[in-house]
Amino acid sequence: MLPGPTRGTLIPIGGKLSDDHILERFIALAGGRSARIAIIPTASSEPDLGTWYERALTRLGIERAKAIPLDERCDCDDADWLSELEQATGIFITGGDQLRLTSVVGGTPAHAMIRRRFAEGVTVAGTSAGAAVMSRFMIARGDEGSSPRAGMVTMAAGFGLAEGIIIDQHFRERDRLGRLLTAIAYAPENLGLGIDENTAAVISPDGVIEVMGAGAVTVVDASELGLNTVADALPSAPITMTGVKISLLGPGSTYDITTRVAHPAAAVYSDE
Amino acid sequence: MLPGPTRGTLIPIGGKLSDDHILERFIALAGGRSARIAIIPTASSEPDLGTWYERALTRLGIERAKAIPLDERCDCDDADWLSELEQATGIFITGGDQLRLTSVVGGTPAHAMIRRRFAEGVTVAGTSAGAAVMSRFMIARGDEGSSPRAGMVTMAAGFGLAEGIIIDQHFRERDRLGRLLTAIAYAPENLGLGIDENTAAVISPDGVIEVMGAGAVTVVDASELGLNTVADALPSAPITMTGVKISLLGPGSTYDITTRVAHPAAAVYSDE
Repeated sequence: MLPGPTRGTLIPIGGKLSDDHILERFIALAGGRSARIAIIPTASSEPDLGTWYERALTRLGIERAKAIPLDERCDCDDADWLSELEQATGIFITGGDQLRLTSVVGGTPAHAMIRRRFAEGVTVAGTSAGAAVMSRFMIARGDEGSSPRAGMVTMAAGFGLAEGIIIDQHFRERDRLGRLLTAIAYAPENLGLGIDENTAAVISPDGVIEVMGAGAVTVVDASELGLNTVADALPSAPITMTGVKISLLGPGSTYDITTRVAHPAAAVYSDE
Repeated sequence: MLPGPTRGTLIPIGGKLSDDHILERFIALAGGRSARIAIIPTASSEPDLGTWYERALTRLGIERAKAIPLDERCDCDDADWLSELEQATGIFITGGDQLRLTSVVGGTPAHAMIRRRFAEGVTVAGTSAGAAVMSRFMIARGDEGSSPRAGMVTMAAGFGLAEGIIIDQHFRERDRLGRLLTAIAYAPENLGLGIDENTAAVISPDGVIEVMGAGAVTVVDASELGLNTVADALPSAPITMTGVKISLLGPGSTYDITTRVAHPAAAVYSDE
């Protein structure tokens, strides 16, 4: 029931990315100077966002960064764009609206290619909507607040790269614990990851999460969930949930998805 | 992206089951006279439903039919119930509320056991909520009507037996085309199956659906989906979707999920 090892490294980022170390880590995992990054700007309605990321990534000294304008479903079987994805050593998914991303790309040849390249070892990073979409079971919409309520979240199918994980973003800044808990109530076999802004959860192929950046990652583990009243709760009423384990992970700390064991940052050890 | 072959046969039934041929087919696939059926009545709030199905199945001449009262999450790692599931040659999931089923059983050892037994070849049948729950991406709640609207459906994680298929039930009787289309808009890599009452879609391990019973099965194929405006639509506004292919399959007809080719009932051929 738990997520198995994925082939590439997955780097969901919580939005408002400004820490260059996160992009540098992405590039290092995608091949360093010889990296070829395909950028997917579909989530955004800003027409220049793809070009902006091309520049931001090229500036860091890589071979190629190319935005792939998958604007409509009919773009998603374009041979040039599929070839670009096939040759990419890294894929970057921008922010915007994750439901736009999946309603345009979901189920198309481009979606299949992204999944195939990831399975073949390609590193995939994404920020905000680009992080949420990595989930199999994705939060499409939701309300703010820390208490789960049955009507506070709209679920959709994500790209399915982070099997068994529901990723939320802008987490602490937009007070999203309630909606992540609600998503887990609707899909209790999933682990929840709430990622703060300018923060990344680097998920290795063997399922170890490392936190980077300015904020924290909140892990919601429902493996010992006791009560879950989502089926009986009115949309606006709080859901009763018991036995949910929450871990708050600061930068440098790690969390093993298989064993559910966390370790603090190495620097903390050396200060003891 | 399409569902791969599953190991057991899956028999979603559209509710209001009265055609004994459907249960007889289930029993034949589950081992005939030596069948051992585990009944999961969790979806229902009627305390006697499990016993009712024990009698209904035993009456058809099988070795054992045993209801497993998974009422709360803490029941779902009970050694006796897990052993009953492990020895079952068939699993039957009753009607009721599919969200109750997943909020209680989802992510527990009983859920893992159901998936494992199905992967090992055990036949799984379910009616109404018990059919909906077979989906990976499940319709938990929804409104009536034939036009898709962004706010008309609530999605949750199902048991994940019918990979890549969203199953809806009481289909024509409760006017559910709109909610199935909406679910597909939210998860376009899925095939939709709308099953009428007292009707079954017998899905073989190699992905061929055969229709049995009084009504029809509606197949919604979004593999050539063009426009999908769910991301931009207000909750109460209709979603624009183009290129959705719908097939209406009467009793005796078949549909190959891999090739997307349908054949009418054999009897029609012999009448030509």
